[in-house]
Amino acid sequence: MPLSPEQEAEIAAQRSESHQTLRATAPGMEQHLYTAHPVLDHGFVRVIDYMGDDSAITQAARVSYGRGTKSVSNDEGLIRYLMRHWHSTPFEMCEIKLHVKLPVFVARQWIRHRTANVNEYSARYSILDREFYIPAPDSLAAQSTTNNQGRGDVLEGAEAQRVLDILRDDSMRAYDHYEEMISQDGQQGLARELARMNLPANIYTQWYWKVDLHNLLHFLRLRADAHAQYEIRVYAEAIAKLVADWVPATYKAFEDYRMGGATLSATGLECIRRMLKGETVTQENSGMSKGEWREFEGLLG
Amino acid sequence: MPLSPEQEAEIAAQRSESHQTLRATAPGMEQHLYTAHPVLDHGFVRVIDYMGDDSAITQAARVSYGRGTKSVSNDEGLIRYLMRHWHSTPFEMCEIKLHVKLPVFVARQWIRHRTANVNEYSARYSILDREFYIPAPDSLAAQSTTNNQGRGDVLEGAEAQRVLDILRDDSMRAYDHYEEMISQDGQQGLARELARMNLPANIYTQWYWKVDLHNLLHFLRLRADAHAQYEIRVYAEAIAKLVADWVPATYKAFEDYRMGGATLSATGLECIRRMLKGETVTQENSGMSKGEWREFEGLLG
Amino acid sequence: MPLSPEQEAEIAAQRSESHQTLRATAPGMEQHLYTAHPVLDHGFVRVIDYMGDDSAITQAARVSYGRGTKSVSNDEGLIRYLMRHWHSTPFEMCEIKLHVKLPVFVARQWIRHRTANVNEYSARYSILDREFYIPAPDSLAAQSTTNNQGRGDVLEGAEAQRVLDILRDDSMRAYDHYEEMISQDGQQGLARELARMNLPANIYTQWYWKVDLHNLLHFLRLRADAHAQYEIRVYAEAIAKLVADWVPATYKAFEDYRMGGATLSATGLECIRRMLKGETVTQENSGMSKGEWREFEGLLG
Amino acid sequence: MPLSPEQEAEIAAQRSESHQTLRATAPGMEQHLYTAHPVLDHGFVRVIDYMGDDSAITQAARVSYGRGTKSVSNDEGLIRYLMRHWHSTPFEMCEIKLHVKLPVFVARQWIRHRTANVNEYSARYSILDREFYIPAPDSLAAQSTTNNQGRGDVLEGAEAQRVLDILRDDSMRAYDHYEEMISQDGQQGLARELARMNLPANIYTQWYWKVDLHNLLHFLRLRADAHAQYEIRVYAEAIAKLVADWVPATYKAFEDYRMGGATLSATGLECIRRMLKGETVTQENSGMSKGEWREFEGLLG
Repeated sequence: MPLSPEQEAEIAAQRSESHQTLRATAPGMEQHLYTAHPVLDHGFVRVIDYMGDDSAITQAARVSYGRGTKSVSNDEGLIRYLMRHWHSTPFEMCEIKLHVKLPVFVARQWIRHRTANVNEYSARYSILDREFYIPAPDSLAAQSTTNNQGRGDVLEGAEAQRVLDILRDDSMRAYDHYEEMISQDGQQGLARELARMNLPANIYTQWYWKVDLHNLLHFLRLRADAHAQYEIRVYAEAIAKLVADWVPATYKAFEDYRMGGATLSATGLECIRRMLKGETVTQENSGMSKGEWREFEGLLG
Repeated sequence: MPLSPEQEAEIAAQRSESHQTLRATAPGMEQHLYTAHPVLDHGFVRVIDYMGDDSAITQAARVSYGRGTKSVSNDEGLIRYLMRHWHSTPFEMCEIKLHVKLPVFVARQWIRHRTANVNEYSARYSILDREFYIPAPDSLAAQSTTNNQGRGDVLEGAEAQRVLDILRDDSMRAYDHYEEMISQDGQQGLARELARMNLPANIYTQWYWKVDLHNLLHFLRLRADAHAQYEIRVYAEAIAKLVADWVPATYKAFEDYRMGGATLSATGLECIRRMLKGETVTQENSGMSKGEWREFEGLLG
Repeated sequence: MPLSPEQEAEIAAQRSESHQTLRATAPGMEQHLYTAHPVLDHGFVRVIDYMGDDSAITQAARVSYGRGTKSVSNDEGLIRYLMRHWHSTPFEMCEIKLHVKLPVFVARQWIRHRTANVNEYSARYSILDREFYIPAPDSLAAQSTTNNQGRGDVLEGAEAQRVLDILRDDSMRAYDHYEEMISQDGQQGLARELARMNLPANIYTQWYWKVDLHNLLHFLRLRADAHAQYEIRVYAEAIAKLVADWVPATYKAFEDYRMGGATLSATGLECIRRMLKGETVTQENSGMSKGEWREFEGLLG
Repeated sequence: MPLSPEQEAEIAAQRSESHQTLRATAPGMEQHLYTAHPVLDHGFVRVIDYMGDDSAITQAARVSYGRGTKSVSNDEGLIRYLMRHWHSTPFEMCEIKLHVKLPVFVARQWIRHRTANVNEYSARYSILDREFYIPAPDSLAAQSTTNNQGRGDVLEGAEAQRVLDILRDDSMRAYDHYEEMISQDGQQGLARELARMNLPANIYTQWYWKVDLHNLLHFLRLRADAHAQYEIRVYAEAIAKLVADWVPATYKAFEDYRMGGATLSATGLECIRRMLKGETVTQENSGMSKGEWREFEGLLG
């Protein structure tokens, strides 16, 4: 169960109090406020606060471009224009604050996105809970045989069972020892800041994470991508759904220009021009390496 | 008059629409929303949006420090503790978005605070208005004779008048020429992005500026300080008043620990210890340079 | 003349002193060190210092990807791989420090790139020089009739002459008045921090600008682009030449994947797939707006 | 042994090649280049590259403050002035790149300093080594009884032994299981990106970390402080020694104004003024809480 009874009570209390505000309000986001959306076996994502909506983006753009934006007939068109031409500052005018519970090895990837504000639960001050990520059987993938950072087939039979047993047993033993070391029952008790070093990377941590919409979309582009590790991708996908309800016009433009789009090199563009003229272009005469050509062919379907 | 009729109408419309929200709401800030607070002769500051309140700061701190924060009895005490020990991340959990109209030479100082989001009115796209900052007579200060970056006495009589005449005349002439160059009446008309180069640094620009509370307090510490240039200080002071209404406990701690506080060197601390033991400490035996000693004496009143 | 005699002497002195170092050294960059490359009528770019070379990028990548990078046969191939897949952190391992002299209106665009370190000449402390940017006749462009932020034809005849006269006269008068106001000859003398407000945006300022290679390439992509304002583009082009000598493999990959490349939307990719199958795709059946289709056609030549 | 034979060979090769350069060179730093300074049981810090020296700081400051800096007689005086008045941008003009090997729980604290560039060894791509931090007996501290985040006395006797046994056994078992899970000997082999989740936080990782001097000093102030966790403090102390050799004047000023200095609140300053007038100030009449007063008394010795 991802939330403690205290947290459930806190959520219920927060959801029951409604305020009057003059601020821009996004109805699609209000419905999600405080609700924990489950991710993985013990994790969640919940929206604590947000600032702005689709109109806040165009309002800021109209400050920048003044009368220049009058020619774009409506907000959706302007948002598409901004996204297409990489005008990122108007998207920075929206902000979101999330409470996330996630395994430590996912947190370590996540934190590399530097342009965000973070308050993480401190294992120097406090005692971590006995909660570990154990992959579901269909997420238990073998190392890819072609890609150093990828996954191959799902493990099967006895091997899958051995892995699950190891992960479960080692987690429980590590936590038992953690408790044993910090215990002050008949002994001094090891400092928390030291004892935590015995805990494996599948233990759950939690944090408040606050980020502007531009940087959030950058995060989603990298982490909701098929090449991202599954365990962070499911968080990105959960957040993407929230964003789609929060700023629907922006999210639609993001899907078209970023998630579904692709960057072509000068060489790749030239190949397309030649192909459209009827020329037969092969890897050999493309100017691309084999790896590049494979990716290029993938794009053209 | 700082606001155009269109802007006045927009503000009135925004202020008339109230929404229900589940988000944290700061009553002290709601009253300021959209209202333009005048600064200098044509400038203003107005709050477009905000995220969080004093409780949002302690809520985030309690995620970080878990049970460790239970010992601090209340929110105000915890906020003072966080401020005293430079725990900045909980203050980053609040955010504010301002619409500011300001002279270009002030904007150039302001923008050096990099950790913020900005959408500035673009003079490439659009035509600037004929609005220039002309100092009030009591802000017309002479160069300090002791400090390269400071101001001395107020200019008087004929000299003051000459300066005001120059500033007014040059501003008006520059704007007349700006309009003349971009005019497409009987001529091609110079590109806006070029014509703007004729405009002096006292012309007004405007922007949306969004920043988290931690970085805003850092801005206020530097810019509401007595050593800051008067023309940016009045903006900082106007914003400080808004912050005092938004997050009163935080603002009070900020006044005590930052605005009214001071940093002492190891040498300075040692001098105080000696003085408290009854020793007579002078610049000569203090280990400080003359400049440092003067500042040190200033602190001790 | 862009450099004062003192600056010329300083450069000569710096260039005459060679040191032994164990650090990575880029021969292509050593030849540029301290030399001022002229830009516009009084501006320049000169390299003060640099850190790293092409090998420093792959060295950092090999720390990250360990044995995973062994499969890429050489540095150039690895650099292309990193650029193609937007692995930006290895490029952040190189750094450059430039001394730039540039008009204030160019500086105002430039400073919006926040991830850099800047020390600008302070007109609060010091007195600015009498140096203004006056466009060469062939840069004196009319406002575009189709694009709010663009330039059209070059101004001709009497109109061009009027514009040049205005820019020259207003610059000189503004500077005369600046000197007159700060003069302490028979009067108190206005504070420098106030007097500077009378100076137009074509006056030159100067700064030290330090940035990592990843952020520099991002700057070049936006500012060496055909849509950037000419007056900042010439600075970007001057810097691009330095980068080509500093990190040749990286620069070549940058030209292919960024400067010469393009981002296609999901809609655009689908159109290409349909065209390659022999279908006739028009704006009407493309799913794109007219503006988007025009840009798309431009890409396909 | 902190370095592999391959790394030792690489260092030897790098140290044997000296280049001519026109760049600013810091003799005190050249001697450290590439040398691994051991930290903890398997960790190290080594300098890969650096940019600038003490003179580079004053050179940048003189660009900013122009003639205003002439009055300060020498570089050391100017550096002290800059540090005292929190003029941080000149210190940003120096940069350092380190290769650091460190336990994961230390890396997690370290990475919270966001204004830096990082390339970390990737356990998605590559296989981690069997190296774990096991505290030396005199670092095996009990939880503080007065401070949630602090350490108390050193553990003794049987308790200390139990803790060491747990840490060693669990580390070895976790690594055995890691190897067993990724093995492709007679089985598919779990993906590396999954297997790593079984490894505890005392395993070593490594990264390249590049940071400017201003942000590095901020890191040192927080992490070389007595309140920092011992395991990160020893890294900060090792780096501090390098900085002292690299930019000696800056480091001296940093020791006086930051490491040895202190920030006093308005309330604290007022208390000192009263004490210097001969008044007896106690916690009760100080306006401070008990915690604050205790810290205040600590400062005054």
